[in-house]
Parts: sequence; structure tokens; C-alpha cells
Amino acid sequence: MVRAHTDPDYSAAYVVIETDAEDGIKGCGITFTLGKGTEVVVCAVNALAHHVLNKDLKDIVGDFRGFYRQLTSDGQLRWIGPEKGVVHLATAAVLNAVWDLWAKQEGKPVWKLLVDMDPRMLVSCIDFRYITDVLTEEDALEILQKGQVGKKEREKQMLAQGYPAYTTSCAWLGYSDDTLKQLCAQALKDGWTRFKVKVGADLQDDVRRCQIIRDMIGPEKTLMMDANQRWDVPEAVEWMSKLAKFKPLWIEEPTSPDDILGHAAISKCHNRVIFKQLLQAKALQFLQIDSCRLGSVNENLSVLLMAKKFEIPVCPHAGGVGLCELVQHLIIFDYISVSASLKNRMCEYVDHLHEHFKYPVMMQRASYMPPKDPGYSTEMKEESVKKHQYPDGEVWKKLLAAQEN
Amino acid sequence: MVRAHTDPDYSAAYVVIETDAEDGIKGCGITFTLGKGTEVVVCAVNALAHHVLNKDLKDIVGDFRGFYRQLTSDGQLRWIGPEKGVVHLATAAVLNAVWDLWAKQEGKPVWKLLVDMDPRMLVSCIDFRYITDVLTEEDALEILQKGQVGKKEREKQMLAQGYPAYTTSCAWLGYSDDTLKQLCAQALKDGWTRFKVKVGADLQDDVRRCQIIRDMIGPEKTLMMDANQRWDVPEAVEWMSKLAKFKPLWIEEPTSPDDILGHAAISKCHNRVIFKQLLQAKALQFLQIDSCRLGSVNENLSVLLMAKKFEIPVCPHAGGVGLCELVQHLIIFDYISVSASLKNRMCEYVDHLHEHFKYPVMMQRASYMPPKDPGYSTEMKEESVKKHQYPDGEVWKKLLAAQEN
Repeated sequence: MVRAHTDPDYSAAYVVIETDAEDGIKGCGITFTLGKGTEVVVCAVNALAHHVLNKDLKDIVGDFRGFYRQLTSDGQLRWIGPEKGVVHLATAAVLNAVWDLWAKQEGKPVWKLLVDMDPRMLVSCIDFRYITDVLTEEDALEILQKGQVGKKEREKQMLAQGYPAYTTSCAWLGYSDDTLKQLCAQALKDGWTRFKVKVGADLQDDVRRCQIIRDMIGPEKTLMMDANQRWDVPEAVEWMSKLAKFKPLWIEEPTSPDDILGHAAISKCHNRVIFKQLLQAKALQFLQIDSCRLGSVNENLSVLLMAKKFEIPVCPHAGGVGLCELVQHLIIFDYISVSASLKNRMCEYVDHLHEHFKYPVMMQRASYMPPKDPGYSTEMKEESVKKHQYPDGEVWKKLLAAQEN
Repeated sequence: MVRAHTDPDYSAAYVVIETDAEDGIKGCGITFTLGKGTEVVVCAVNALAHHVLNKDLKDIVGDFRGFYRQLTSDGQLRWIGPEKGVVHLATAAVLNAVWDLWAKQEGKPVWKLLVDMDPRMLVSCIDFRYITDVLTEEDALEILQKGQVGKKEREKQMLAQGYPAYTTSCAWLGYSDDTLKQLCAQALKDGWTRFKVKVGADLQDDVRRCQIIRDMIGPEKTLMMDANQRWDVPEAVEWMSKLAKFKPLWIEEPTSPDDILGHAAISKCHNRVIFKQLLQAKALQFLQIDSCRLGSVNENLSVLLMAKKFEIPVCPHAGGVGLCELVQHLIIFDYISVSASLKNRMCEYVDHLHEHFKYPVMMQRASYMPPKDPGYSTEMKEESVKKHQYPDGEVWKKLLAAQEN
């Protein structure tokens, strides 16, 4: 058996777009990585940069679909993707910066920019290529127009109550039982009612940890499991039959993210084409968007609309570096303008690394409170960027010096 | 509609492994790209290099499955793949170099190394992760053991007659009708009986070009079409209904390479998990392996064995830079030891850039003649590498200087 993500060293490729507008506004974009390989993503960002440099923001967002295609269908770079892996992560970082810049110039947080945007304009941000057999431009427009009904009330509700979250902070692999118990007790005290536990390394260990957490949270609260691609299909079936008694709501990434037919429940996917098929094949009961793996707001819009068409609840992936900050905008927009439902819906939350962000998430009563600062909440504190920049930041210099000794 | 690959500038990431064996043998590996983005692949090769440096070749090939997993499941780099896009192309280049080194040390071309290898050893090179629901180690062993029957005769046959090929050199998009006719006439003279035409940019243009080529080759010879991912699913259906009268044997890459459910015939895929599903979903009538997109010989072995299990003919993708040189080893091995059939089988051939290789393909009577030099035919001429190295090679210096003026 293979352990995935055994030694993550949370990192990010961070893109800053400056303009000649003299308003001091910068667009900041991010994509999360596990450490090594960030330099590969940065290299891809540089290869994409010429699509953005010396362009006018108005021209970009005025034909956002065209710009999206230009980035994802670069005649030469397409070969080393297309729309997957390193190149797509780099595309996400660049586009996230564009969205941050646009929202800041409009003086709105991204979720509000989206909520207030005319449905025709929203649709013009989406590339429908390869998904028209499931979602056409007309379908999308119809969904968004229906979503206008009751929008005002849902926006008020979000501002008052926030979007429901679940926590993954308690039950990572490798935590001792004592740590697990302590974190779980604290989370219960803080009002959390939905918990995710990482599984898949050792079955006996999983059974013991799931027992502890189910005992502590009681039979009514919600428990999810995440296997991080650890299993083959038959292995997944066997393993899950042993864990079923703990009543998980879902089991996440049981196998390869490329295995559409092997999937049973929920998966982080790399583009809208994979999501389309999971929906077509009825292989998803929940759909997990990601703000840094898909092609930014643009591609996530198409996935949110497909999920609506198939009436599959969207429960975003978050954590990492900045994923919570970004994805809250998408899911709050989804509730107000697309899904209009909170049933079986919740957004992942991990209590980690928010201190590096200039506009960190605001959690209240286990919910994401809608951000009010303009932009995509992607901007990092200058101090943090300076300290953690590879390889010249203070933190890295110390680490590298220690390695040499 | 989107044009894919509109301005390719054929390039390659080229990996050379040197050892301390003092036998002067180098392992050369390659992965093909369309130009920009090669530097991103090179960056990923550097990120993977530490898995190879200072290792003993004996240890690597002695546990080749373990080594393959180490490369493809690096705890941190896995995030920016896994097993797709830039990272997987880099993995292919590194592993191709290892196979070249191994075969050279054994004094055999790769196809012969594979043909002579004990089935248990062959199976030990394959990572069965994510495919055991379709192909287990036992299945693979059984197929390979059955393949021993008649092996000697098939090897003799290959050495005498070669492996049948088809040509894509006549009918690229953008060729004038005159050029098309001239190239087609020459190919017929040279004994070619199977032709592939690129389609998908303009329907009227396609109809005219297909008519020309079908008229020239007559009704009996074989015609294939390649749409290079240009269509959505409904568009593909409409377009193909107009081209059906020219009786193509297959239509290649009608839509996104990620769209398993949208596929109808044949596709270049990025890993064994995608191939597995195309076979499971009966979405393929032909299977196209690639020597530089999949994880080298190791991953291609698993795909050849799955194709055998589903009795789907394998017709490799080639062309680019060096793809013909490499893939001939795999398909010759496939015939001798796995498929034992030539029915509906042929390997793509493009008459392009072979002059840069030290051991270029040998074509006779429109067939690939089995290479006799030790190695994987991956080694490039020193002079070619020197001239074309980016950005310091003579060719690039001239190009870059011309750009500045």
C-alpha cells in the first residue's frame, strides 16, 4: 500500500499582478502545493505570464472566456497539460490574481462581485468547451436567472449566519490518541458539529481512531472520512466495509483521482471535464470544488452550475495554504445565486496558516462569515511573504543552513 | 471552436544519466513537447533527480516497481500531478533514460531485453496500483506465460518483415492541396498502404482534403482521422457524420483526453488509470500508447497487458521528437510476447527529425524493422544536442538574435 502525502511541507506559488493605474491596487493569486514542486509551478507561471503582461484588465474581464481559453489552450503549453497538473495549478494562481485585482478595483469581495453580476456577464466568464453535452450556455443562463429569486434574503442570511463548515483539524493521521481527544473536545466546545477524519494508512489504527471520535461526538453529529487516494478499488470496498459502522457521511478520494468509474462518493478533481463525467456516471453523491486546483472562479462557476443541474450538493475542499480564504467566496455565491440550499452542504475548514493572510477567514459558530474586504482574500502579509520566500527568506535560510551543518 | 497545437515548435526534454562504471555507457531519456513549457518539464526533471542520483542501477531495476512508485508517489510532488501533465512527462524522461541505460548495459535493444526477460521479472516492473480491479499481478503473469508459445517464430518474423506502420506525413492541416497530392503520391510509391489525415479545423476543408486523399489511395487502403481534441461531444458527432463517407478506420481524439464517457474510438491518454476506464467503458476500439506521455516502459507494460485482456488492438502514437524511435520497441515486444496478432494493428510513423538520433528508426516496405543497437534508441547525436540546446545552442542564439532585431 502506498501512503500519499506522507511528508507535506505546506507551500504555495504566489502571484502578484501590479498595474500602472496608480491606485496602489495589486492582484494577488495563490496556488497551494505540498512543498517540493512549487518551483515547477512557478516555472509554469512564468511560462504563462506573457498572456497577462501589458494587457488591460478591462480587456481581460471584458472577454474573460477568451482570456481563459488563451491561458488553457496556449498552442504549445497545452501539450504539457492540458488543463491538469502543474500547468493548471499555475493557471489557477494567475487567474486567482486577476479575480483579486478585478474585485479590488470594483471595491467588492469576490463573492459579492459574483452575486451582483448580471447572469449574462457571469456566463461570459465560463468556457463551455467539452461540457456542452451536459451544460450549454442557455442552461447556465436559465439556472442563474432562476437563482435571482430570493437572492436578497439569502444574502442577508449569509451575512447574519455565515456558511456552515466542518473541521478537519482534529483527526490527521499521526496524531496520538491523546491529541485527537484533546482537539476533538476543544472543537466540540467551539461549537463544531461536523468532523472529518483521515484514514487509509492502517485499518486497525483507523478503527480505533474512528471509534474514539464517534464516541466523543455522539451518534447525531456528522462524521466524514478521507482516504487521500490510498486504495485500489477492491481495497477501498473491503476497508470501507470495516469502517461503515461509524456511519461516515462520505468517504473521500478512495482511489486515483483519475478513476471516474472506480469512484463511489466524492473526489477532488482537476477540471470540469472530470467533474462532468462523475456527474454523468452518477459516481458522486457530493461534489468537492477546489479554488486552486481548478481554473479559478471561471472553471468553478461551470462546476457549480453542473452540480446544480444534477442536484448534487457541493462541499468544497479547503485547508492547505489559503484554500479556506478563497473557497468561501465561491460557496457563499453558490448558496445565494445558484443552489439556494444548505441541505447536506458544508465547507471544509482547517485551522492552519490563516495568520499569514491580510484578510483571514472569520469563523463564527462553526460557520464562514462572508468576507467584507474587497478582493479574493488572497493577499498575504508582506512580512510573511518576505520571511517564507524560497530560498532567500529568513525561514528558508535558517533551514538550509541547518541542513548543511 | 478551438484550434489545438496551432503553432508547435517541436522540442524535447533530454535526460542523460552517467554512471561511475567506466564503461562509457550513458542512459539517455527523452520526452517530447511542443516548444514552450519544455523548461517547465526540465524543472520537474530536476525536482525528481534526487531519486536517481547516487543510486545503483542494479538496485533500481532489481525493485523497479518500488522505484517507479517512488518517482510517481513522491510525498510532495504527488500533489502537482499525480501521474499526469508536467510531472508525468518528466517521470517518463527519467525512466526512459533508466531503460536505455539498462538495455545498453545488457547489450540489447529494449524490445529484445523485454522479450528475453522472465515473465516474473517483467511483472515486477509494473505498478498495479489503481488497476487491480481489471488486471492483477496473477492475470499479468498468465498473459505473459501464454505469450511464450510461438515467441521464437514471431521474433523471426519481426526481424524479417518488421512491424506494420501507417504514415501521418502526408496530410497535416495547412498543407496546400498540391503538397497533399504530391506527398500522397510519393507515399504510395514508397509502399505505404495506411494513411492518417488531420481534421477538425474547418469542415468544408476537411471534406475536400479527405476526398482528395481517398481518391488517390483508392477504396481498399486504410484511412484514419485525427481531430486533436478539437470538438465537444455533440460537435464531434455532427462533424464525423459528414466525414463518415470517406470510411475512416478510426477517429482519433475527438474531444478532451479527460472525457472518458465522451469517447468513442481512440485516444492518447496520460496514464494507466484513464486507459483502464476506457477499456472498462468499452469506449475504445483501438488503443494508442505513447512512449513519452505514460510512465515509460513500466506503465506501458501494464497498458499492453490490459489491452490484451480486453482484446483491443494497440496502435501506438508516434511522431514528435523521438516517439517513433522509442515506441517501436514496445510494439515489437507486444507482438512477440503479448498480443501475438497483427490484425488491425499498426504503428504510427512520421518522417520527421530522425536525423538527430544516433540510432534512427529503419523503415522497410512501410514497416518498422526491429532495432539492433543496444538501448532504447533514445540517444541523440552530440552535434544535434549542442546545436539545439535552449537557449545557448547555435540554432537558438540565431533565432533569439533575429527576434531582437
